[in-house]
Amino acid sequence: MSSILIRNGILITMNPARLVLQGDIYIENERIIELPSTRKTADQIIDAYGKLVLPGFVQVHVHLNQTLFRGMADDMDVVDWLRLRIWPLERAHTPGSVYASARLSIAELIRGGTTTAMTMESLNFTEAAFQAADEMGFRAIIGNAMMDRWEEGTEMIGESTEIALSKSLELLDRFDKTKGGRLHYAFCPRGTRNATDDLWKEVARIASERKVLIHTHAAENQAQTERLAKFGGHEVEYLNSLGLLGSNLVIAHGIWLTDKEHDLLAASGSTVAHCPSANFKLASGIAPVPEMLEKGINVAIGADGAPCNNNLDAFMEMRLAALIHKPRCGPRSMPATKVLEMMTINGAKAVGLADEIGSLEVGKRADIIMLTRDVLHAWPSLSADPISQIVYEHKALDVDTVLIDGQVLLKDGQFTKWDARDILNNSQEELGMLLERVPNL
Amino acid sequence: MSSILIRNGILITMNPARLVLQGDIYIENERIIELPSTRKTADQIIDAYGKLVLPGFVQVHVHLNQTLFRGMADDMDVVDWLRLRIWPLERAHTPGSVYASARLSIAELIRGGTTTAMTMESLNFTEAAFQAADEMGFRAIIGNAMMDRWEEGTEMIGESTEIALSKSLELLDRFDKTKGGRLHYAFCPRGTRNATDDLWKEVARIASERKVLIHTHAAENQAQTERLAKFGGHEVEYLNSLGLLGSNLVIAHGIWLTDKEHDLLAASGSTVAHCPSANFKLASGIAPVPEMLEKGINVAIGADGAPCNNNLDAFMEMRLAALIHKPRCGPRSMPATKVLEMMTINGAKAVGLADEIGSLEVGKRADIIMLTRDVLHAWPSLSADPISQIVYEHKALDVDTVLIDGQVLLKDGQFTKWDARDILNNSQEELGMLLERVPNL
Repeated sequence: MSSILIRNGILITMNPARLVLQGDIYIENERIIELPSTRKTADQIIDAYGKLVLPGFVQVHVHLNQTLFRGMADDMDVVDWLRLRIWPLERAHTPGSVYASARLSIAELIRGGTTTAMTMESLNFTEAAFQAADEMGFRAIIGNAMMDRWEEGTEMIGESTEIALSKSLELLDRFDKTKGGRLHYAFCPRGTRNATDDLWKEVARIASERKVLIHTHAAENQAQTERLAKFGGHEVEYLNSLGLLGSNLVIAHGIWLTDKEHDLLAASGSTVAHCPSANFKLASGIAPVPEMLEKGINVAIGADGAPCNNNLDAFMEMRLAALIHKPRCGPRSMPATKVLEMMTINGAKAVGLADEIGSLEVGKRADIIMLTRDVLHAWPSLSADPISQIVYEHKALDVDTVLIDGQVLLKDGQFTKWDARDILNNSQEELGMLLERVPNL
Repeated sequence: MSSILIRNGILITMNPARLVLQGDIYIENERIIELPSTRKTADQIIDAYGKLVLPGFVQVHVHLNQTLFRGMADDMDVVDWLRLRIWPLERAHTPGSVYASARLSIAELIRGGTTTAMTMESLNFTEAAFQAADEMGFRAIIGNAMMDRWEEGTEMIGESTEIALSKSLELLDRFDKTKGGRLHYAFCPRGTRNATDDLWKEVARIASERKVLIHTHAAENQAQTERLAKFGGHEVEYLNSLGLLGSNLVIAHGIWLTDKEHDLLAASGSTVAHCPSANFKLASGIAPVPEMLEKGINVAIGADGAPCNNNLDAFMEMRLAALIHKPRCGPRSMPATKVLEMMTINGAKAVGLADEIGSLEVGKRADIIMLTRDVLHAWPSLSADPISQIVYEHKALDVDTVLIDGQVLLKDGQFTKWDARDILNNSQEELGMLLERVPNL
């Protein structure tokens, strides 16, 4: 048994009462045991005096394998972005390049306070992403992209329904709910245009039988959404007709949904992953998030892939989620607490872990981050609301301590278990080798 | 004479050819003497190997005195924001609180790579803002707000035309074009609803006679703009009728301008200060920046005041300027170079210093910043375009070196001439005292 006492912090609990209090947290092994705690000792004592202590961020739409391609696909719409860059680059991956990309991503995520990510990987070598998450102590819900429908003569990648399913089933058996519940599997049909009815139906059947999460893209690009609607129907209606909607489903983007689709998502408890930076960068639009929240849809947040963001920064995405809807919905829409809920408890709910993470509560996992307040850009703090500061003022590099499952992974802004320089060097090297495999980029 | 050699950097010159090259910069006193330089020695040598070296950022709309009020006015529209918070708080300033607020602002600005700011202060104690800029070696164009028209029975602040003018003239005489051209004065009628025709006319006359900059707000809030248009006409048309437009005029926001007003601004060489964060936070809207640039208007960028942002972060504003127009104007609109131009050379032009700052060129002032590339969130750098990295990936805290007029003010991310802790403590203390003077906030 190992114990940690976090002492004298400003605790932003995000518990059901959204309580903020000054106090201590006592942790044994991977769980919070007392909050506020009156214990005096523990194996390890962390001084949080003057710091903000909060649940680690949960990002529900990320592509770990794409971080290697950061900055290589700027100023393009989503169709060109996929065809000219992302498909050819993903196709050139090896286990080594996926591993390097995942390590770089996870280091950036942890450095900025994200303790859990739901990620969609490419067609191959997703075990290397699991390996990186496992070794780094990160909480992740990872899936291999499933693509059994593609357009001939394009750069689009794909494989048969049988192969797509068998790869996912193998990874599901090997990784789902392993490492004490730190690693999970999610089925990832890439989007309605990338998967056949047969694949979707089989995913629905197995997911229901074995309680598996499903993670896909829908209603990202207006033209694409309208084209799909002409042939196969509106995407969420289509998914509904195949029995896919439910509290185990996360759809990324959800910008161009109909009112009927909103109702379907709300009624089924499905989640929309809001990706504000990526939606701007690919010119996709602004998802109607206040309206979706109002209708009772669970909306969480994700940075999406580095090539369409270009960071994996929870603070950036929260700030945008707070700011960008105000001109449309008014200055009081998307107040800070609602945004922090999206990045914590709504994210936890999206990945089926609302009883385990997403808030600081007794019995939950010790996925905890601490922020220093002594920074010029979030000062003075005298009369400021700490939640407002987190959303509107603080930055990823203000995170100075990160615990996942009670393991201290970041302390005083430094990683405790790996060398950032090594991660940088390794990813640069792997990118160099990968680019040699894509001669005509 | 003192000399500095910046060695072996990636120089983002922003010269007319927008040249990017690997090389050295040789500086004597406050100016760039050779670029690329072949000198071998200097009094001081700065190793820039692997770093991005670029002109310091120029922000053209900031309120130094408001930084003390950061986080105290969240989730309000501009009218409430002014009446319930900003007017009462500004009214409670003393020289000490303005000085503390300006020091805090300037430290944050320099830390994030901003070397020049055009700022609008309150009705009183603007000499304390000048004092802070002077002592800290910052380049600033500062003005005392002029408000000789106000609504009775509101919290709005104001004073007589004579007093407004005499205060500005005194500050103009005392500070304009002092400290070797590092400090400048700008007339700051706060907005068309805050100043009488007489005041505007007098400002136009003196500004033309004595070559003074003018800095104001216009077309920020739609309802306000429409109300003003009913009584006094569209704001820029009104300013034009009084002879105010010209290359010495900067209007902040410019969201709700008519086509005719766009033409007037373009023809006169006036500048619009784009403030994307503030325009979101106060629910004001999105300024049509690509359209204004297309029409030939000089558009530069500013963070506005901390209470409506809540940072003074050039990187944040550049990122937003690059992202937010894409859904409306397409993914190729607002490419990175265009955005970096707005934050450098367009800003320099806005404040009448295009021959002195805004690019790295021989003969210009040595206002230079350096960024470390070895950060997780902007990696890999192997095949990335450095300008795209600056706009889409880098963050304020990646700035590790800042020179203004050849003075090294930040080195290895640390201030060389003052103690950040002291600035934090002093501003917190001054805010505490100020809040005691505003009992009914």
